[in-house]
Amino acid sequence: MVGGGNDAFIGGVHRMAARLDDRYELLAGALSSTPEKARASGEALGLERIYSDFQQMAEAESAREDGIEAVSIVTPNHVHCAAATAFLARGIHVICDKPLTSTLDDAHRLVAAAEQSQALFILTHNYTAYPLVRQAREMVAGGDIGSVRVVQVEYPQDWLTEPQDIKQALWRCDPVQAGAGGGIGDIGTHAFNLAEFVTGLEVESLAADLQAFVPGRQVDDNAHVMLRFGGGARGMLWSSQVAPGNENALRIRVYGDKGGLEWVQENPNRLLYTPFGEPQRVITRNGAGAGAAAARLSRVPPGHPEGYIEGFANLYSEAATAIEAARDGTPVPDDVLYPTVHDGLKGVQFVAACVASSRDNAAWVTL
Amino acid sequence: MVGGGNDAFIGGVHRMAARLDDRYELLAGALSSTPEKARASGEALGLERIYSDFQQMAEAESAREDGIEAVSIVTPNHVHCAAATAFLARGIHVICDKPLTSTLDDAHRLVAAAEQSQALFILTHNYTAYPLVRQAREMVAGGDIGSVRVVQVEYPQDWLTEPQDIKQALWRCDPVQAGAGGGIGDIGTHAFNLAEFVTGLEVESLAADLQAFVPGRQVDDNAHVMLRFGGGARGMLWSSQVAPGNENALRIRVYGDKGGLEWVQENPNRLLYTPFGEPQRVITRNGAGAGAAAARLSRVPPGHPEGYIEGFANLYSEAATAIEAARDGTPVPDDVLYPTVHDGLKGVQFVAACVASSRDNAAWVTL
Amino acid sequence: MVGGGNDAFIGGVHRMAARLDDRYELLAGALSSTPEKARASGEALGLERIYSDFQQMAEAESAREDGIEAVSIVTPNHVHCAAATAFLARGIHVICDKPLTSTLDDAHRLVAAAEQSQALFILTHNYTAYPLVRQAREMVAGGDIGSVRVVQVEYPQDWLTEPQDIKQALWRCDPVQAGAGGGIGDIGTHAFNLAEFVTGLEVESLAADLQAFVPGRQVDDNAHVMLRFGGGARGMLWSSQVAPGNENALRIRVYGDKGGLEWVQENPNRLLYTPFGEPQRVITRNGAGAGAAAARLSRVPPGHPEGYIEGFANLYSEAATAIEAARDGTPVPDDVLYPTVHDGLKGVQFVAACVASSRDNAAWVTL
Amino acid sequence: MVGGGNDAFIGGVHRMAARLDDRYELLAGALSSTPEKARASGEALGLERIYSDFQQMAEAESAREDGIEAVSIVTPNHVHCAAATAFLARGIHVICDKPLTSTLDDAHRLVAAAEQSQALFILTHNYTAYPLVRQAREMVAGGDIGSVRVVQVEYPQDWLTEPQDIKQALWRCDPVQAGAGGGIGDIGTHAFNLAEFVTGLEVESLAADLQAFVPGRQVDDNAHVMLRFGGGARGMLWSSQVAPGNENALRIRVYGDKGGLEWVQENPNRLLYTPFGEPQRVITRNGAGAGAAAARLSRVPPGHPEGYIEGFANLYSEAATAIEAARDGTPVPDDVLYPTVHDGLKGVQFVAACVASSRDNAAWVTL
Repeated sequence: MVGGGNDAFIGGVHRMAARLDDRYELLAGALSSTPEKARASGEALGLERIYSDFQQMAEAESAREDGIEAVSIVTPNHVHCAAATAFLARGIHVICDKPLTSTLDDAHRLVAAAEQSQALFILTHNYTAYPLVRQAREMVAGGDIGSVRVVQVEYPQDWLTEPQDIKQALWRCDPVQAGAGGGIGDIGTHAFNLAEFVTGLEVESLAADLQAFVPGRQVDDNAHVMLRFGGGARGMLWSSQVAPGNENALRIRVYGDKGGLEWVQENPNRLLYTPFGEPQRVITRNGAGAGAAAARLSRVPPGHPEGYIEGFANLYSEAATAIEAARDGTPVPDDVLYPTVHDGLKGVQFVAACVASSRDNAAWVTL
Repeated sequence: MVGGGNDAFIGGVHRMAARLDDRYELLAGALSSTPEKARASGEALGLERIYSDFQQMAEAESAREDGIEAVSIVTPNHVHCAAATAFLARGIHVICDKPLTSTLDDAHRLVAAAEQSQALFILTHNYTAYPLVRQAREMVAGGDIGSVRVVQVEYPQDWLTEPQDIKQALWRCDPVQAGAGGGIGDIGTHAFNLAEFVTGLEVESLAADLQAFVPGRQVDDNAHVMLRFGGGARGMLWSSQVAPGNENALRIRVYGDKGGLEWVQENPNRLLYTPFGEPQRVITRNGAGAGAAAARLSRVPPGHPEGYIEGFANLYSEAATAIEAARDGTPVPDDVLYPTVHDGLKGVQFVAACVASSRDNAAWVTL
Repeated sequence: MVGGGNDAFIGGVHRMAARLDDRYELLAGALSSTPEKARASGEALGLERIYSDFQQMAEAESAREDGIEAVSIVTPNHVHCAAATAFLARGIHVICDKPLTSTLDDAHRLVAAAEQSQALFILTHNYTAYPLVRQAREMVAGGDIGSVRVVQVEYPQDWLTEPQDIKQALWRCDPVQAGAGGGIGDIGTHAFNLAEFVTGLEVESLAADLQAFVPGRQVDDNAHVMLRFGGGARGMLWSSQVAPGNENALRIRVYGDKGGLEWVQENPNRLLYTPFGEPQRVITRNGAGAGAAAARLSRVPPGHPEGYIEGFANLYSEAATAIEAARDGTPVPDDVLYPTVHDGLKGVQFVAACVASSRDNAAWVTL
Repeated sequence: MVGGGNDAFIGGVHRMAARLDDRYELLAGALSSTPEKARASGEALGLERIYSDFQQMAEAESAREDGIEAVSIVTPNHVHCAAATAFLARGIHVICDKPLTSTLDDAHRLVAAAEQSQALFILTHNYTAYPLVRQAREMVAGGDIGSVRVVQVEYPQDWLTEPQDIKQALWRCDPVQAGAGGGIGDIGTHAFNLAEFVTGLEVESLAADLQAFVPGRQVDDNAHVMLRFGGGARGMLWSSQVAPGNENALRIRVYGDKGGLEWVQENPNRLLYTPFGEPQRVITRNGAGAGAAAARLSRVPPGHPEGYIEGFANLYSEAATAIEAARDGTPVPDDVLYPTVHDGLKGVQFVAACVASSRDNAAWVTL
């Protein structure tokens, strides 16, 4: 693991996610950009192979017989590119947090690095691995709602309603570390990715109106985006970090000419499905009405809630299966899905397009 | 009453709303543009004074000693202007369905007619008279959520997901009768009006992307609109008639720098209020946490749901109070609120701006 | 109308309910047991025929050519019997609030009076007239959930959590006016009636544990009751007036060997239906999945909420249809349903059985 | 681990729960009562120390220098006593699934064994370790709802609505393996334990009406129980395995003279709290309004749902802390809570009392 030291949040989530299904072992780490903190954090986790930076770690691990097979990169955004490249160049698989990079240049560089490498690159758009998100995707693909017309996706939070000086907030609001997009990069990319993942459609152009409501904030904390998808579907995306009463209320609604779907991250064990002209159905994770795609990623019976960590763990398990297939030289099963470096590039392009559109008074920008 | 014959929907609602609080008596009607239907419909309601058209009715009633004091106009949109003008010109108060008119020219004409008349003009944006909508408005005005930053308002339906040939659908999808806006005129105006009513802010400009998804439909059945309010707040408005699983899911969320509010028409007896940094509160109609504005418009104890007809009746009662005040030459109490002809003009301007913006590839249009 | 003076609650509801569908006209009243208040209340309603007591009213009205055809009795419980008898004896139809009477003796007396009269007796167990309660009943009768096994019904409130000295509370907590049952009589009878109405089953025996939690209260404010139905179904009934967070949270759940149903009064426009082994469906009032029984009692399209007053008005309209049929000598249509004096007797028997069981340490008592 | 072989359900949950916080290592197992299956299951998990029965395992492990420090027992109920005793007798800590045993005799035997042992005994009433259950307990203890009056607890499921012949169902419906209680033992004990845990009160007596609705079933699949708590509070408990539409809908509501609380397992990240006379508040896990007890057991920010596995893992972590304290000879911190063998005895006594009461026509039985 690179990043994820003592006072980080997402690093701990990655570790729990990796552990849950018992398919990973944490062997080495460069857990902070500050060498002392990297050491202290590594010791706190009982690591034996502690490195002071990712470069050193990539070199040392690739040189060992028993070196790591894969690395998790959970640093602030601006470090992703260099860190991932260091491992990819040495054939070590990379599991990397989103957004892919803080700049579009970095994103292209990282795509090139991934393409040149034999190693896999998995981007943790974790929401794509919730069982009922898979169910929704499968239903759209299977024609259950007909031809998609309208996509409403939103990710409101409230934690940045006032200025915050905790570490989590500081780097996310710093354009150097986070990139030009603030909320649109941190959570808007999740919403964007989810919309494409569930519908199987691609956003072709967008018009964005970004704001920084909190005085002094250098990046957006609220974003309104109109979307045009290939094939004619239209959508709206809203991300906000200043919407009191919303914690992590990622929500997607997809409407086609035969039906509609609705899913909410805060209660992810229910998927609302309405075939046009019939009563709404409540599909539960692993319950009646849920299909193979959801069941494959469920651990416990319906009615026993699974949540954020389980969804994240699903993505780690998908990655594990892909890594094992790579090790064995066998094909990855068709139903194993994970976001790739190309999805990551699209996310960074999405952020860049939103920023560009917003600067041009919400003019349409082609993706 | 003008319009509201046997096969209409909204006329019956107006009649129930007028009856509920026992402040109106239905005396006369020109209930259809077809004389035979006007007669049959009037007889079905037991009316004695049945007219074959609104012109005849306005003349005859204004000539009677015991002529009607107010008229409800519940025809398709394109008739509003002429009908309302006929009564206003004769000093008869007008309660008129929304949108104000089918064209902007008509809207200006009607404003002029109302300004020249001593009679009142009340537009039935009925959602403004739900007790908890009043509560929300009062809370925003009272500073409970601080300075407004973000407004998310939406009104999705699904009844026009497929082509419909019932009367209700036909005139609403006909630009001659409905105006250039389809869904944006029929339900988008409600959402627009509600956003302004609750926040006390005015939309200054908008960018709209309208679609007609159902083949052959001549007016929009889905609209995505970005809003910029005076004072810097931003918003999104979504109206749709092709969103399966939504019946009349009007919903407004308002976020300020101190808190957030959320209200949904389909379950209108709850208002969610989150002071930033505190748990969300569920304010119930007439229950703990609800103030005078909500209590004044409630009839039954909390927990006993009131609904659409009661909300509509509240507006009729507001109108009755204003009419009585006009009759007595006394001022209308401050807490009596109803949408005016000027609100109606703004609604028609909103529709025109959406249509113009959408034709110009969602460019910003000033309201 | 008898009872329902200025400071009463339910009288106003009856009047709105009677007015909503325009099938009643309020002509006369003895609105209070205090003659001055009766007069003042009558004048406030604009009544011309104001009586100082029900006896005088029954005599005078039955003597008039244009006397009232039906009377609403909305007094405290202990007056129901005498008042209803006075009108029934003179052939005037009676619409009477629940519970039927305050004592079992009175209940039997009133049944006898009703049986001897040509006039109709309608008891306002208003919840039976919610459209989706009818839907539920129809579904159970139609076998949609198979053979009923379990019935969970509850009616929690919180308004008597602390001692209250408003009139509404005082008579309800006075055994002389209310009867031996407090909450079990006031709201438990609704729950009991609803359970029988929806399932079509009859409670054969019960075991009840009643409490008066508020110090000094002479009647129960919380009741736990186990139910055994004919045919082998079992149930639980809970009524409470001391459950903070509950306003009028009447809720019924019925489970059979093929499916389950759930309905909640506070959001009465949704009925949850789960065919065993399939996803839960959300049936909306007048929407997809709702049948003729619900549609017949709906006024506005699905998604526009109807509530308590509409449900009450439905019962008044059922009564109106029955009264018209009686007037015309035609049969009442099969789908017209209203609670009768016999249902009322069962309610009073239910209260008596609960009180007796509770006094005998919750022993089983046969109904 | 003892039990939890290839086709078991709960064993896998225990393993994930133990793994999540990285405080356990799975070293040895007797995963099935069938030696071949025990071997196959152990190998599937990559175990090196595989035993064919728990007796052999207890002996061998206690003899090793590096023997296990604690054992998880996840067999059917009738094996708990003997298995746990084997380990306790050798000083190995026991984490055991509920109910404690299948018979009251066994329960007393196991209590004695635990009392004689230095080793700890932890019973996995996992629901007690949900963060918001801890929050609720803390609020009741802190007086937030005043003196407790009413407790409504229920655990409905639907999976046994029809006869099932999967292994999970077969042993649970077999009185030899499960004990005299069917659903009341399997899920009713959870509800009972939760009621006592949250309120801090003890059930003193109960009256139970148990049914086996599915033809041929030898144990209850539905139970209605009235409860009397020490101090005067009253309650109802409902457990059912035949309630279509319920998956694992464990729900508890507690009402005191100052407020009410409600928590539902299927959406465990919300706790509804109503101070009497104020609006209901929605306390979220780790969010505003949640206190130290909930925060201590939360891993991710509010709005990111945690679920069943996390709750289970919390209990494993509580156990780990207690085991470490025992190892170090230090006291267990006050806020570390887990159900003990005595809680387990109470659960078995509860089942026995329910069965006895039901056989005696729901007479009151003292606990």
